[in-house]
Amino acid sequence: MPYYIGDVIKDSKKLIARTPEKFEETGIRVRLNTRVDEIRADTGEVLLTGGERLPYDTLVVATGTVAILPDIPGTDLNGVFVLKNLRDGINIKEYIREHQCQKAVLVGAGFIAMEMAEALKTIGLETRIVYRGELPVKKWDPAFSAIILEELTDKGVIFMPHQSPVAVEKGDQARLCLVTDQERIETDLIIFALGVKPETALAQAAGLAMGESGAIRVDHFQRTSREEIFAAGDCCESYHRVSKRWVHIPLGDIANKQGRVAGQNIGGYAATFPGVVGSNAFKVFDLEVAMTGLDERTAERSGYVPASEIIWGTPVARSMSRGHRLGLKLIADKTSGKLLGAQAVGQSGAVSRINTLSACLWSGMDLDEIGFMDFAYSPPFGGAWDIIHTAAQILKRQA
Amino acid sequence: MPYYIGDVIKDSKKLIARTPEKFEETGIRVRLNTRVDEIRADTGEVLLTGGERLPYDTLVVATGTVAILPDIPGTDLNGVFVLKNLRDGINIKEYIREHQCQKAVLVGAGFIAMEMAEALKTIGLETRIVYRGELPVKKWDPAFSAIILEELTDKGVIFMPHQSPVAVEKGDQARLCLVTDQERIETDLIIFALGVKPETALAQAAGLAMGESGAIRVDHFQRTSREEIFAAGDCCESYHRVSKRWVHIPLGDIANKQGRVAGQNIGGYAATFPGVVGSNAFKVFDLEVAMTGLDERTAERSGYVPASEIIWGTPVARSMSRGHRLGLKLIADKTSGKLLGAQAVGQSGAVSRINTLSACLWSGMDLDEIGFMDFAYSPPFGGAWDIIHTAAQILKRQA
Repeated sequence: MPYYIGDVIKDSKKLIARTPEKFEETGIRVRLNTRVDEIRADTGEVLLTGGERLPYDTLVVATGTVAILPDIPGTDLNGVFVLKNLRDGINIKEYIREHQCQKAVLVGAGFIAMEMAEALKTIGLETRIVYRGELPVKKWDPAFSAIILEELTDKGVIFMPHQSPVAVEKGDQARLCLVTDQERIETDLIIFALGVKPETALAQAAGLAMGESGAIRVDHFQRTSREEIFAAGDCCESYHRVSKRWVHIPLGDIANKQGRVAGQNIGGYAATFPGVVGSNAFKVFDLEVAMTGLDERTAERSGYVPASEIIWGTPVARSMSRGHRLGLKLIADKTSGKLLGAQAVGQSGAVSRINTLSACLWSGMDLDEIGFMDFAYSPPFGGAWDIIHTAAQILKRQA
Repeated sequence: MPYYIGDVIKDSKKLIARTPEKFEETGIRVRLNTRVDEIRADTGEVLLTGGERLPYDTLVVATGTVAILPDIPGTDLNGVFVLKNLRDGINIKEYIREHQCQKAVLVGAGFIAMEMAEALKTIGLETRIVYRGELPVKKWDPAFSAIILEELTDKGVIFMPHQSPVAVEKGDQARLCLVTDQERIETDLIIFALGVKPETALAQAAGLAMGESGAIRVDHFQRTSREEIFAAGDCCESYHRVSKRWVHIPLGDIANKQGRVAGQNIGGYAATFPGVVGSNAFKVFDLEVAMTGLDERTAERSGYVPASEIIWGTPVARSMSRGHRLGLKLIADKTSGKLLGAQAVGQSGAVSRINTLSACLWSGMDLDEIGFMDFAYSPPFGGAWDIIHTAAQILKRQA
């Protein structure tokens, strides 16, 4: 496994040109294309490939994640990709252009697969999604996943459920063939979008403690189990304010915040990362899809007694909603009445509701409060009773 | 002053047809076009015009507001309007159609004037706004009001600042003439949009206590100073969770909530109205304009030491923002670091930010928390650092 200092920076040609210079102006040296083979925590140095030793007083581990590839033959063939960083994206685009690809297969049905399905279909490729389950994006309620499937199908993406890849081979009519446990799919391009796992090999070898999630354990200051070593971003855990557990949620906005907190602490300005509530979103064609907090399963595992309700409404006042519909699911704790999570799907207004509910989750608000919250009401932006109010009041009756 | 039971219902022809019948099915009798001359609180009855007495065990006062008309000659001329209820709206439309109006003048520059300017200009009228101040919507920061003025001007609305009406007369070239302290403006239609005041005459005559705002005093159960008399909607006060004062904010969403709380309590289900944070919004042409909480002036009056900052950014990730800009102003208390208020203006994304910040205000969150809050991040919906994060972190440096 190669490790690079400045891995992300290397990926962007513009940044490569600018960033080292910019850093060096401030006295910071950036070493690109430089692999770390080992962290020697006891002596406070990192060992680079080639034998050079770099001493440190403070070290930040920001090794990110690795994309998961299935353990099947043929994944090393030309035309098989994962999508983890900007370089992967550029490689995929160049490959499509060079080989005038006509057909693409995505393996997996999470949000990367959804976003790539839109991107590939939009540039004209026949696009298939191969998925072992029944419905896409399994973190969402099946009612919402069904709507996402409808959107994919409406836009011409072919969803192939209930099958798993067993091999990649050279194709007959196309460049490649994805062999599944059900059929053989000829295609020019295969992207495995099966998720990521934290890249912790260096940290583990250095004896840093890992969390239960398998990511590097940190505290609210982004310190690892060694005081002088910090970790930030997708390689480490975050505190989940609703489940009250440390979790691994590898997302760019969280990584940014953790990086800033680590940097502030290293720079001598005490800062804490207050944690996450599990908010995330993606766009697939004309749908906004978003969630925050816990679903029923994770809520139960965290000791709550969840109740939930799905409400259908409009993103703005009904008379002005141009046919747009909005589905909102709320999950709350029967014991305390507190909101535990929310999911939303619609042509518009889904993300804005989830962000507002994220703020409610952040402070532990209950359904009584949420049912009467004060929003900026005006018919072009919402009804006098927003879908949030209605959902909270209806769920309250059973929660 | 006439008072009607069921005043709002009367206004909508469809509801007139349906509602009384629907109510009567459940045993509720609706008396339309029925004026109450007096509430006799001591004997528990209302006195109707014509002498009939209606006894009550529980009474709800929902008399709303009256639109303010200036004390100048000629406001009773045909073609002079206020816009308070649906009937007013229908009358204005009918008048414009009947008299083939070409020119309209709005007096005042609050959100009703903004919405009407868009409506009138959109149907082709030459539209003027006459205002005694310098910039429209004075509750917003002058930097934002200037942007709203630019939008009005871009769209062809003529803004005439620094003048006050002194009379309405019959016109020479047009149907009417608005005489101001500066000039004579020929016009076919004049709408006074100078705000509203609570309609409290009946309540005051009945000896109900009034709040400092001039609206009917209520508690969190919507009870007035008499246990058996409730009040709800624009005629009564609301508790402001940020200023910790009872205020008069006549808005439809608040009225709905108060009505529901009053109804629940009367029906024997204890309910409390938890108050407001002062959220409101309007659309003017292609701009969303929204605010919540307190501005510096009201914050000072409430005992806070306000600091504020205006940030300019984009509603979604910069690369996807199609030229849209978003301005966000945050106001916070220097002593506690708590958020006190927020204002936003932009082609999109303003209302969603204000709703999220309303939830933050609701629970009394401080800038440290808001600067690191967890939103549903995805480039089509926002940056990894949302404008809310950036604004909170920048204001934190001075607050």
